Amino acid sequence: MTRTVYLNGDYLPETEAKISIFDRAFLMGDGVYEVTSVLGGKLIDFDGHATRLQRSLNELDMPAPCDMDELLAIHRKLVEINGIEEGMVYLQVTRGAPDDRDFVFPDPETTKPTLVLFTQNKPGLAETVKPLKIISIDDVRWGRRDIKTVQLLYPSMGKMMAKKAGADDAWMVQDGFVTEGTSNNAYFIKGNKIVTRALSNDILHGITRAAVLRFAQEAQMDVEERNFTIEEAQGADEAFITSASTFVMPVVEIDGVTLGDGQAGPRALRLREIYLDESRKAAI
Amino acid sequence: MTRTVYLNGDYLPETEAKISIFDRAFLMGDGVYEVTSVLGGKLIDFDGHATRLQRSLNELDMPAPCDMDELLAIHRKLVEINGIEEGMVYLQVTRGAPDDRDFVFPDPETTKPTLVLFTQNKPGLAETVKPLKIISIDDVRWGRRDIKTVQLLYPSMGKMMAKKAGADDAWMVQDGFVTEGTSNNAYFIKGNKIVTRALSNDILHGITRAAVLRFAQEAQMDVEERNFTIEEAQGADEAFITSASTFVMPVVEIDGVTLGDGQAGPRALRLREIYLDESRKAAI
Repeated sequence: MTRTVYLNGDYLPETEAKISIFDRAFLMGDGVYEVTSVLGGKLIDFDGHATRLQRSLNELDMPAPCDMDELLAIHRKLVEINGIEEGMVYLQVTRGAPDDRDFVFPDPETTKPTLVLFTQNKPGLAETVKPLKIISIDDVRWGRRDIKTVQLLYPSMGKMMAKKAGADDAWMVQDGFVTEGTSNNAYFIKGNKIVTRALSNDILHGITRAAVLRFAQEAQMDVEERNFTIEEAQGADEAFITSASTFVMPVVEIDGVTLGDGQAGPRALRLREIYLDESRKAAI
Repeated sequence: MTRTVYLNGDYLPETEAKISIFDRAFLMGDGVYEVTSVLGGKLIDFDGHATRLQRSLNELDMPAPCDMDELLAIHRKLVEINGIEEGMVYLQVTRGAPDDRDFVFPDPETTKPTLVLFTQNKPGLAETVKPLKIISIDDVRWGRRDIKTVQLLYPSMGKMMAKKAGADDAWMVQDGFVTEGTSNNAYFIKGNKIVTRALSNDILHGITRAAVLRFAQEAQMDVEERNFTIEEAQGADEAFITSASTFVMPVVEIDGVTLGDGQAGPRALRLREIYLDESRKAAI
């Protein structure tokens, strides 16, 4: 079935949604994005994603395409038109398409931002638990990973490296310490403690990360935000990732080393359950 | 006047050249590019650019959109249609537009590369010498700057930082040493010696760089490829940049420090003259 997508004010069949070759995201990676998940036809943590989008725009001096109420209305309309019960809404803002390619930012008076949204239908998203095998790779991304830009070539290459190695995903390592996964935050559990890297420009400030760390208390767990190595994670009881589209997903192997008995860890599964319950309750 | 541009087999008015919102360059920065200059209606160092393009494609496992003879024919046709005497031809290849967004590379059997070319008309390009004021900024780009990808947000931000500081461009500094300019290679001249950073994954392997270093002998100058600091460049006799679209351009100020008497340096101007002469002779 052909999706209906949103592009700059219009709801269009996905095959007709086209942008100028001069769009700054196409020519220069000058765009930011968000992915909001949908459960029971409702949006999970929309406010968190909207707030982070505004931060990304601010950091890049990129004009907002519209206010956040309007963004919410577009999200809801796309979910409705496309009949999404479980899945995601992808949103991208770019600095627009000036008349010509130039490293200098276009004048926002004459070049309006590009706004694109589309849905991804994923029936069974909340039910599906597929424990992950992880490899480690060098983190060679740019220094502002806190800004959610579309400069995703290296994360994409990282997924391919994982695939080639027979794994599901990669954790990136910088100066000996894990930063994050290719499109998710990284954690391990030892005893009663969840360990994950502290926020900085080195990692994405995950919306799901923030929620899961809030819910840790409900799972009677402590949280330690600090640097950790692959070796330390390999010696943990459990490990997991979080992202808007995978929620909490157990990790059972890191660089060929099996964690525990190789099954999805009970604490990670408990965190997933709490996250899904709380998120469904707060969904809008 | 509306340019005619090339997109996937068609020659189109620039206003009609549109790509899918699912194009990998738009969503993920998954594209590579080249800029070839035009003098006297002919292409400068086309072979150098075609070779580097092939290398970028190889490094990213990206399929080539066509063979290099066909690329040359497209370049020439665009130059002719648009009546370009002096200017540039911009070329971009992306991994194409799969049916949906995914970090995994699309299957090249079903998703064909996107190929876009457009001209930029710059009458007087060879005549115009505008000595540059440079500021230094941290180099926070990703680690594979030898691959000419469209992930140009930071260089674009760098140009804006320069503009805000009343300068023309920025040189990027990593671990205390200059890597390169935002869209050019960086050099200084002390006595009879040209100093520029050695090739590695840290900088673009400039086509103009290679030519100018070859021509240095003709200018009776030595070349030293090594790391250098901003302070060393500030103490030099002259400085300059090279790129396909600026050829050799003198630098007269670095972080507020005037070089020599603040005029375009004679050796840089001599290198520019030799480069333009030799390039015109070899143009195709």
